[in-house]
Amino acid sequence: MATIQIDKSKGDRTRERVIDATASLINARGLAGTSVGDIIEATGVKKGNLYFHFGSKEEIGIAVLEKARREYFGYLADNARGDSPLARLNGVIDAVARFHRKTGFTGGCIFGNTALETGDSNPRFAAFVRAVFDEWTGLLARLLAGARDAGEIPNTIEPTAFARLIVASLEGGIMMARLSKNERDLIQCIDAIRSALGMSATTPGRRDITRKGKEKC
Amino acid sequence: MATIQIDKSKGDRTRERVIDATASLINARGLAGTSVGDIIEATGVKKGNLYFHFGSKEEIGIAVLEKARREYFGYLADNARGDSPLARLNGVIDAVARFHRKTGFTGGCIFGNTALETGDSNPRFAAFVRAVFDEWTGLLARLLAGARDAGEIPNTIEPTAFARLIVASLEGGIMMARLSKNERDLIQCIDAIRSALGMSATTPGRRDITRKGKEKC
Repeated sequence: MATIQIDKSKGDRTRERVIDATASLINARGLAGTSVGDIIEATGVKKGNLYFHFGSKEEIGIAVLEKARREYFGYLADNARGDSPLARLNGVIDAVARFHRKTGFTGGCIFGNTALETGDSNPRFAAFVRAVFDEWTGLLARLLAGARDAGEIPNTIEPTAFARLIVASLEGGIMMARLSKNERDLIQCIDAIRSALGMSATTPGRRDITRKGKEKC
Repeated sequence: MATIQIDKSKGDRTRERVIDATASLINARGLAGTSVGDIIEATGVKKGNLYFHFGSKEEIGIAVLEKARREYFGYLADNARGDSPLARLNGVIDAVARFHRKTGFTGGCIFGNTALETGDSNPRFAAFVRAVFDEWTGLLARLLAGARDAGEIPNTIEPTAFARLIVASLEGGIMMARLSKNERDLIQCIDAIRSALGMSATTPGRRDITRKGKEKC
């Protein structure tokens, strides 16, 4: 029994190693630019063993996206803290900016990159990434609805449409910040979002972004 | 003299043919996925002749982006019509949605795609695309400043930050609509932008988008 458990754990570690190495490869050169040979070279996992764990490169790609999705929403949930819906919304928006600042705006967003790379060519990846954006929009829409009910934001805000605007502009802002390697493009989007929600420049969340611009997270 | 002009015109036609064919190839498979061999195959232009007109694949890529930039801003200028800055802003936003609806949301935005593909790897392409986004942001910021001065939008709107929000969210919205092949994602962003600018659901620009949703442009 102990032996079986050790074997299983070893298999899990192999899976994890393949997923993490493939994530780095995809981040640097895209899914199409990453071959099974590259994954074997990066991990040292033998071909037969790789195909024991994953049926195809596509399966590895989906496992990479699943892990990224799990970690990303866990991270957002950890940062959705505060004593009101608006404070929790601010926490989430700040967390997204910190997440990308930490990487120096290289790599961009794995979901956005996958969307651009496979949006027209691979329905399975497109559906996965679309579900991520819908889940993210839903999370923000619930916080916006709560903030509206609590009278924290103008009652003209339509939660779902505004949540979609936030997700779309964060994705676009990350893309532009990645081009310039300067967070100004993303910060301008966040400032405009906060202004539209009736928040002033002295809102704690906004101060957090602008003042900690050079910190290592 | 006449002979020289005919030769020049033939050369121009060759350049145009290479640029247009490469634009289609890049649209379908990205810049990295397009080889000089693919361009030769698609155009029938001989290798020596191709290198007479363009020094490298990168030069062809830049020429593709230059043509796309020229056509895109010409198209936006043609649609920036109306008797007030806000009407002209609405014209531009509607034009962007129509532009992508026409393609059925396949292909996405050539500038966004190039940004995602080369943002970390090719400084020349990154700088070109960044300049396009800055020019687009500048165009919208001038219209927003005019609308604010004319009292058409809330005076809390900061033109440059809000213009950046519009460009980022249109890029993000186009990316999401490309995933779903459904313009709803982009329309939600546009609705939220218009709402933040104080426009109602009956604003002509908004009606244009929602009512003409199925027309061929």
